[in-house]
Amino acid sequence: MSAISSTLNTIDANLDQAVARLFDLLRIKSISTDPAYKADCLRAAQWLADDLKSIGFDSSVRATTGHPMVVAHAKSANANAPHVLFYGHYDVQPVDPLDLWEIDPFNPRLVEANGVKQIVARGASDDKGQLMTFVEACRAFMANGGLPCHVTILFEGEEECGSPSLPAFLAANKDELKRDFALVCDTNMWDTRTPAITAMLRGLVYEEAIVRGPKRDLHSGLFGGPAVNPVRALAKALASLHDDTGRVTLPGFYDGVAELPEEIAAQWKALPFSEKEFLGGAGLATPAGEKGRSVLEQLWARPTCEFNGITGGYTGEGAKTVLPAEARAKVSFRLVGQQNPQKIVECFRAHMKAQMPADCSIEFLSHGASPALTLPVHSDELRKARAALKEEWGRGTVLIGSGGSIPIVGEFKRELGLDSLMIGFAMEDDRIHSPNEKYNLSSFHGGMRSWVRILDALGG
Amino acid sequence: MSAISSTLNTIDANLDQAVARLFDLLRIKSISTDPAYKADCLRAAQWLADDLKSIGFDSSVRATTGHPMVVAHAKSANANAPHVLFYGHYDVQPVDPLDLWEIDPFNPRLVEANGVKQIVARGASDDKGQLMTFVEACRAFMANGGLPCHVTILFEGEEECGSPSLPAFLAANKDELKRDFALVCDTNMWDTRTPAITAMLRGLVYEEAIVRGPKRDLHSGLFGGPAVNPVRALAKALASLHDDTGRVTLPGFYDGVAELPEEIAAQWKALPFSEKEFLGGAGLATPAGEKGRSVLEQLWARPTCEFNGITGGYTGEGAKTVLPAEARAKVSFRLVGQQNPQKIVECFRAHMKAQMPADCSIEFLSHGASPALTLPVHSDELRKARAALKEEWGRGTVLIGSGGSIPIVGEFKRELGLDSLMIGFAMEDDRIHSPNEKYNLSSFHGGMRSWVRILDALGG
Repeated sequence: MSAISSTLNTIDANLDQAVARLFDLLRIKSISTDPAYKADCLRAAQWLADDLKSIGFDSSVRATTGHPMVVAHAKSANANAPHVLFYGHYDVQPVDPLDLWEIDPFNPRLVEANGVKQIVARGASDDKGQLMTFVEACRAFMANGGLPCHVTILFEGEEECGSPSLPAFLAANKDELKRDFALVCDTNMWDTRTPAITAMLRGLVYEEAIVRGPKRDLHSGLFGGPAVNPVRALAKALASLHDDTGRVTLPGFYDGVAELPEEIAAQWKALPFSEKEFLGGAGLATPAGEKGRSVLEQLWARPTCEFNGITGGYTGEGAKTVLPAEARAKVSFRLVGQQNPQKIVECFRAHMKAQMPADCSIEFLSHGASPALTLPVHSDELRKARAALKEEWGRGTVLIGSGGSIPIVGEFKRELGLDSLMIGFAMEDDRIHSPNEKYNLSSFHGGMRSWVRILDALGG
Repeated sequence: MSAISSTLNTIDANLDQAVARLFDLLRIKSISTDPAYKADCLRAAQWLADDLKSIGFDSSVRATTGHPMVVAHAKSANANAPHVLFYGHYDVQPVDPLDLWEIDPFNPRLVEANGVKQIVARGASDDKGQLMTFVEACRAFMANGGLPCHVTILFEGEEECGSPSLPAFLAANKDELKRDFALVCDTNMWDTRTPAITAMLRGLVYEEAIVRGPKRDLHSGLFGGPAVNPVRALAKALASLHDDTGRVTLPGFYDGVAELPEEIAAQWKALPFSEKEFLGGAGLATPAGEKGRSVLEQLWARPTCEFNGITGGYTGEGAKTVLPAEARAKVSFRLVGQQNPQKIVECFRAHMKAQMPADCSIEFLSHGASPALTLPVHSDELRKARAALKEEWGRGTVLIGSGGSIPIVGEFKRELGLDSLMIGFAMEDDRIHSPNEKYNLSSFHGGMRSWVRILDALGG
């Protein structure tokens, strides 16, 4: 039996234990955006460092000004093997609205839905389930004579809140983290049977706008009319950000947005993708983005301006005749091509400010600004990884774009000069960031097996 | 010493005890709009019924399908005296945002601010402090030989949530409640030294709109672009409700809105009213209502469309890249003249529905619809009450309008055929519905004394 088949056998024989370990990690409420969960984030980091130590990594929890990093190293017996840097994040999204969860989001369950076994919990897919596929592959190699590559692991705890500590941490630990290339496990397969490597990523600008009017909440009968209303000012300003064709109205917003090369457009057109099924999965029927663009183009190759949250005045049950003193909105932009995040921040703020009526002030908070990325698609590593994935899944590996942002890939390039391979096993319907997040058991199992094959191919 | 001076002396001598009784009532958290405080509302009703019984009223707590009513009766020794119906409400507004309160809103304090003694608590002014001025006047009469009028008291517990049980209760108890005329204590003085009777009231339509798009919250990277955004749909629809001059755009909205008669316009113009001071008190400088109208006109004689609350998506700290499944807004209209509330509800709903993009549905909840009111200003009761108020305060009584709604006055007219005198002692700056609500001690004390004089005048 070759080394790789015994390692794959170890994966198959220990699936239940691997699920149990993932459940332990999923029980930790590591919500990074809410300061109330600070201790839980530290606990998740410590759990990972301990687990990696138990399989032979030299691991440590490393403090930052925010939530800690986990860094771990293990050598291959093959001194000439490449040295990979693997990245994942142990922090998760908030769980509200809690009443829409069918289970306690931090009490993971293995359930069967439509004949598909699924691990259900906050973070099951994004990103605890994904990162554990790699840890389990390493564990199986360790039990079968050792790793085929030198491996450095970096687990972050602030991915869901804009990675504020990451750039400084990479810069301060450049020698320790600059390896031959990076492996990032935070993306999707094409479908349950077709592996994918992500080659285009949208960037993200995330702003919060706070509009303030009267110095306190007012009675709408006693002041309604002469007193300015911040909710009205905010609604009007937000409504001015799109035109009737769905385009963003900010001047210069489309600077650096190129039309899709015909070659890629043709490849996407050939993909077995049903707009109807994609939208139908979310209860929708009509593409709501820029008119005249396909759904995949709207998702992967066009920028957006989205309203992620809004609040102001009385939002409880029943009626309160209040004129609110304040209103807030969270507004984010997905960027593509060469759009400049900083310019878009400036342009957005200037535009919103110009919309304010007399007696309304507006303040802004930044929750992140990162550019879009397009990755080199002809490298030796990519070729090996594609072949290994095809070996595991029995189908050709699709090169896709992603509508989401994975700022780490930009940071690795900028701070460490590293290219990344984005390989993940999540599904479009995993409900990441939503209630009842899940990870298919086939993603978890196939993901572990895939990493065994990829590491073996990269080391050979 | 005449009966009235001994009664006034009793008021003056027992001010501290009257404040202590009011504090007992203010400690009860009778927030009617939130079902969590149902038992507290019942407790407030019981407290009032007990207090009225203790001074000789035949009182009872009367169940409704919502919060209970308090009804109490007491006769005058003068069989020919008129029979008045006094109205107040024991329920209060919610207290959020709680962090802006300088005290616990249900732990009342007597404080001195800028040389003015103030009772600070939720409900101090609206309406517990106001209704207790009448109860204390009755108590003082009872201690000095009895009431000069026959008195029926009706205290409601649902004024702040649209009075859902009131019309049926009035209809079912018509014989018991139909008296000669009504006294309603829920309005303001002109200023701390000038009494006022309110003769024009704006009506109120209060709607809640719920916009639904995707069947669950979505990830803004994975769906942003092709998926419709309910916050965006709602913001756009709300923004379409006003034009650039501040007028409401709903077709037919201004039907039944007459221009102010020149005589009243002249009277209002002569009032010692500073727009700058009024707005400055709320931290504002520029009248935000319809262009070309005075602040008093915007407040008392023009209709409005206001946004009282909005919510949707992620509203916690930090960032969440979510596309919300739902967004909600509370929208209210202040009505004047002959505007038809039901027509405005229909028109609003039709307009909002027409603004919805594909895949967005909109649902509406009604939180009330009552017309504006103009009261007869030449009655015998009004003449007597004006004179009694002038006697107490040493200044002529101003006839004013009010921007707020007091639907009870319409209900009394409709269900019982009664005219009402709206006499109150609150101040424009009482922060009703806002944090740190207060009632000047001079309002409370002068209010009690005023009712002694008014009841004496009406009975004479």
